[in-house]
Amino acid sequence: MKAFMDENFLLQSETAKKLYHEYAAKMPILDYHCHINPREIAEDRQFENITQVWLGGDHYKWRFMRSCGVDEYYITGAAPDKEKFMKWAECLGKAIGNPLYHWSHLELKAYFGFQGALSARNAEEVWELCNRKLADPSMSVRNIIRKSNVKLICTTDDPIDSLEWHKKIAEDKSFDVYVLPAWRPDKAMNLEKPDYRDYIQKLSEVSGVKISTFEDLKKALKIRLDFFASMGCLVSDHGLEYVMYEPASDTEIEAIFTKVMNKESITRREEMQFKTAFLTFLCGEYKKRNWVLQLHYGVKRDNNQPMFSKIGPDTGYDCINNYAPSSQLADFLNHLETQGSLPKTILYSLNPNDNESIGTILGCFQNSEAVAKIQQGSAWWFNDNKTGMENQMISLANLGNLSGFVGMLTDSRSFLSYTRHEYFRRILCNLLGNWVENGEFPEDYDILGEIVQNISYNNAVNYFDFDMLK
Amino acid sequence: MKAFMDENFLLQSETAKKLYHEYAAKMPILDYHCHINPREIAEDRQFENITQVWLGGDHYKWRFMRSCGVDEYYITGAAPDKEKFMKWAECLGKAIGNPLYHWSHLELKAYFGFQGALSARNAEEVWELCNRKLADPSMSVRNIIRKSNVKLICTTDDPIDSLEWHKKIAEDKSFDVYVLPAWRPDKAMNLEKPDYRDYIQKLSEVSGVKISTFEDLKKALKIRLDFFASMGCLVSDHGLEYVMYEPASDTEIEAIFTKVMNKESITRREEMQFKTAFLTFLCGEYKKRNWVLQLHYGVKRDNNQPMFSKIGPDTGYDCINNYAPSSQLADFLNHLETQGSLPKTILYSLNPNDNESIGTILGCFQNSEAVAKIQQGSAWWFNDNKTGMENQMISLANLGNLSGFVGMLTDSRSFLSYTRHEYFRRILCNLLGNWVENGEFPEDYDILGEIVQNISYNNAVNYFDFDMLK
Amino acid sequence: MKAFMDENFLLQSETAKKLYHEYAAKMPILDYHCHINPREIAEDRQFENITQVWLGGDHYKWRFMRSCGVDEYYITGAAPDKEKFMKWAECLGKAIGNPLYHWSHLELKAYFGFQGALSARNAEEVWELCNRKLADPSMSVRNIIRKSNVKLICTTDDPIDSLEWHKKIAEDKSFDVYVLPAWRPDKAMNLEKPDYRDYIQKLSEVSGVKISTFEDLKKALKIRLDFFASMGCLVSDHGLEYVMYEPASDTEIEAIFTKVMNKESITRREEMQFKTAFLTFLCGEYKKRNWVLQLHYGVKRDNNQPMFSKIGPDTGYDCINNYAPSSQLADFLNHLETQGSLPKTILYSLNPNDNESIGTILGCFQNSEAVAKIQQGSAWWFNDNKTGMENQMISLANLGNLSGFVGMLTDSRSFLSYTRHEYFRRILCNLLGNWVENGEFPEDYDILGEIVQNISYNNAVNYFDFDMLK
Repeated sequence: MKAFMDENFLLQSETAKKLYHEYAAKMPILDYHCHINPREIAEDRQFENITQVWLGGDHYKWRFMRSCGVDEYYITGAAPDKEKFMKWAECLGKAIGNPLYHWSHLELKAYFGFQGALSARNAEEVWELCNRKLADPSMSVRNIIRKSNVKLICTTDDPIDSLEWHKKIAEDKSFDVYVLPAWRPDKAMNLEKPDYRDYIQKLSEVSGVKISTFEDLKKALKIRLDFFASMGCLVSDHGLEYVMYEPASDTEIEAIFTKVMNKESITRREEMQFKTAFLTFLCGEYKKRNWVLQLHYGVKRDNNQPMFSKIGPDTGYDCINNYAPSSQLADFLNHLETQGSLPKTILYSLNPNDNESIGTILGCFQNSEAVAKIQQGSAWWFNDNKTGMENQMISLANLGNLSGFVGMLTDSRSFLSYTRHEYFRRILCNLLGNWVENGEFPEDYDILGEIVQNISYNNAVNYFDFDMLK
Repeated sequence: MKAFMDENFLLQSETAKKLYHEYAAKMPILDYHCHINPREIAEDRQFENITQVWLGGDHYKWRFMRSCGVDEYYITGAAPDKEKFMKWAECLGKAIGNPLYHWSHLELKAYFGFQGALSARNAEEVWELCNRKLADPSMSVRNIIRKSNVKLICTTDDPIDSLEWHKKIAEDKSFDVYVLPAWRPDKAMNLEKPDYRDYIQKLSEVSGVKISTFEDLKKALKIRLDFFASMGCLVSDHGLEYVMYEPASDTEIEAIFTKVMNKESITRREEMQFKTAFLTFLCGEYKKRNWVLQLHYGVKRDNNQPMFSKIGPDTGYDCINNYAPSSQLADFLNHLETQGSLPKTILYSLNPNDNESIGTILGCFQNSEAVAKIQQGSAWWFNDNKTGMENQMISLANLGNLSGFVGMLTDSRSFLSYTRHEYFRRILCNLLGNWVENGEFPEDYDILGEIVQNISYNNAVNYFDFDMLK
Repeated sequence: MKAFMDENFLLQSETAKKLYHEYAAKMPILDYHCHINPREIAEDRQFENITQVWLGGDHYKWRFMRSCGVDEYYITGAAPDKEKFMKWAECLGKAIGNPLYHWSHLELKAYFGFQGALSARNAEEVWELCNRKLADPSMSVRNIIRKSNVKLICTTDDPIDSLEWHKKIAEDKSFDVYVLPAWRPDKAMNLEKPDYRDYIQKLSEVSGVKISTFEDLKKALKIRLDFFASMGCLVSDHGLEYVMYEPASDTEIEAIFTKVMNKESITRREEMQFKTAFLTFLCGEYKKRNWVLQLHYGVKRDNNQPMFSKIGPDTGYDCINNYAPSSQLADFLNHLETQGSLPKTILYSLNPNDNESIGTILGCFQNSEAVAKIQQGSAWWFNDNKTGMENQMISLANLGNLSGFVGMLTDSRSFLSYTRHEYFRRILCNLLGNWVENGEFPEDYDILGEIVQNISYNNAVNYFDFDMLK
């Protein structure tokens, strides 16, 4: 029996251990996609207690507590921080097989030096331990990032964002980690939302372009794209129900946009036509700027109306949307390719059933512009667990070039989540180790070590074209 | 090499063996969903031969025999019982990898003391052995149930059923196992069927409510719900192609119902509108009564018209319907939640690809009304095999709270199927054992033993709120 | 650690080794589905270098090279053969987890005696070695086939094909391997294609039937079916986006056909109606002739328009089409069954998510006409890898009769691909071995050996009714 989550956690063979400890562990982290707040880096926030860090905004944990029958009072309600933590510890103690179990214990070990298993029995002790550590300056946000060996972070930012905190961080010579914006223009696309016109008004103000037409919108977005580029942005991100392809003429698109500006209703098909045109435009701009397109899809959001009314979005009420026609995804990419405007692209579906269709679509658009120009993103959100990551990598390896994979990202709102890179690397090394142990690939550490280090870090640097010379 | 199906069958590690033998094996059985005939319990039926028990109504076995090229004469035809058994034994001998192989041998071992492997070579001997045992009073239906350590059984019953056999069983103080009805109102919902009006007529008679409108139908159903409740019913069950959400006004629903009563045709959309309204109504009633809603979906039934004409439904001609939009399922549950009428719910899809979308939908509707209020049901029907059960539990653990899972049910027409609980528990213990052996969860038998015993039995008692004090 | 791809490659237990070496390895090969060119057999082609064999038409390898960022010049472009090989070797060296890694090394070992791992480091040496061997008469096409222990090959042929090369091979008494045509009438069905009328014109000429109506088309096809039958054909093959069922009257079908002949446009629904009628007709003809129907579906082809314009179809730009409603597949088969015209059928989907829905559909149409009359085909195309084959066999075993499975085919354009049968048999034996080692099936080599040899070869002979007495 292997010891509980020791230094060889998830490493089931000698080859896996060697690959992890001698090759993967030492690599820095390039976290090209996350949701942390740059202000907290700029201000170098210090947390008061572990509840703030762990339960302040983590809808994964909230969902799990709800599934244990815990009252909302102890989750997002007014319960004191310590009571919330005690409830969480009780739930976690039974969370067998859930990635939260591993994430939490990796964090307890890496940042708090706690080697045990958290449960109701030792919750008091862990509460004290974590809070004592958190009070130490070594646990400020910047110091957490430093000790995690992070070299570069991309946040997630709206086109109207001033990026003031990114600017402050860049100007501060005492902090040598890149914190770059990523361009997430969902609000500029989602014209079916009730607050769309308000958003367009704000974008108009920020860009200085009066927006009455889709042409105006494009002008405004270009100005913001240039601004983001000036701030070092090289990555975009889009959240979609599914990747649609509904072509329409320029005239039709303008008519749809006009309807929305005039508060008239549009059809679902018109919505999809507009979104197709919107994405097509931006992809061309990304291609010109050598940016990477990230498409996150397969999600149905805010499914619990009573809770949405109470506590809003991103609170743990999202699910998989299993309608995601591979034909439209392929047609959309082909449309871009035919126009010469297909940028480097990373595809993520929330539905793990899409692994294989994505894997076969990648292969239709690869060329010499980049190694693995079209990528399948790492197992995302609900799939960010051992089986999810293994299945994504096995599928990618079966259907394409695993060695060119850009690898892991935290996708997190928390500064303690960098251990998810460790989790990923252990799973990667174990998978490769198993293949070698089973005689399916030679025990050649020159090749294996290079593959591991590339997927852990180097591929991302090269793929995104980040300048790491700071 | 492990011995063939010995006491450590499917238990691949020492931890698994300990969990199974010391914790799981001793737990009683709560079979909250099956299709056995209560009359046979009331009359304490004794079987004449193993063909009656095994091949009398088991469409799993029929399908397998057909896939071996056996003539229907030996399956549902007029062949003598012994010849049918000989054909079955010949097929089973080659059934490598099929769950029937394990189910049959678990039954042979538990009820007939046969330790070998049935095939054409020893069919004669097994035929004699089984029939000899079946002639013994210890193998009456009630004694099979008793020796299986079953505490409670829910059958599957139509709203118009008199429940006379349940009554007889309840009144018989010599039998201390609960045999409760479960409410399965599919016939009252499926207004597209040719015999719908006949059914409504019968329901009208049984309930004493003249049914001309949907309002009348609801009245009649409420009367039957109360009757079922008075008989101890706490569980409902619905069989659906997919979980639909097609909202419509009360007026529209009444118009649809009127059309059907007048023998006019309705559209597919109207059918789905009616079914949405029908389910919505009943869910509200379940919620009021603290009943559990079971939704079984993803099925396309009776796909072989010539055989359907000859031998009717439930004879082995059903398949997966892979159209099951997660968006409609989520919207339907949200609709109930918004009305405050979402009962405790167990979701089962016949399509294992739905595991992950179900797992993410559960999380959107959990709250403190119950531990794991929304459940994913155990691997159902065609998925009731080793990989199917493992995948369901891994998915559930990844996405939610495995420790709150209500676990196994037989879903069977046979009294020998209680060994499927053994099959399930072995797979459960092996899965947990592997995690522990691999260092993914601590070797803490207080926690592990509690989880195993809860999933085996206690969770079901608590979730359904059964009063087990008899 | 197991040695890299030695004689026990993929055989993880003693049982697996015994099953493979003592039972599977010696069985001949019946390659009932491939895309090799019969002319090259008739002319007994000799290859000049390994690039011709490996990279001349292999879109699997092309895709992989593109995903490594290789310029098209070295793939399908004008680069010298040696340079192409060097680029390929460099890519292959990093192809961890990709089936090309195993396929290529199995071929290097079986046909060239090379035991190492090909990479950029030894590419020069392997280039020399392979070309030296290829120059030897023992590496002519016929000798490769002979040394691969192949007994029968079915090519893939259009109804208008003259089958002249098949005739020449059959007449040549010096070659004792059957090379039979297979009937692939996609071009006669795909009336939405721009060149459909040209094709019908050609079919008209070849058959001697003037084709103005669908009735004429059927007459022409019957003449060609009889011709194919006279050449020993027993197998048909259809490539479909998905298996559709859109019934229509004869009059409607004739109207659709007339429209197309008159260059008028038709709707998508009309296209599907015509295809339903076309397939229904041919299935009846197959049934009469005791032919096997193969349905390959789940594909979206030619997704990269710029590359399609440059280098045409079958060049590595196809992907999974994840729209494949199981309800239409079941309804189509039921339609045939109801008419008494359902032939022996093999179903292949490119989407591995369809494994389970296919597995449940098989069971609805089995009967005593053949053992496993309706088959799920071996893991196809992108699924032709270790996990794909394992998952297909586990699913088939769970849901049906694995022991009746007709097993592997190469589906290949290359004469070196017979090692894919070895790959398949190793995976099969390992799977069965694991079950035995785990106590899930008895260690009974009479039964196990028979199952392995049947799946490897005998089942295909019996199922297709090939006369192997040559």
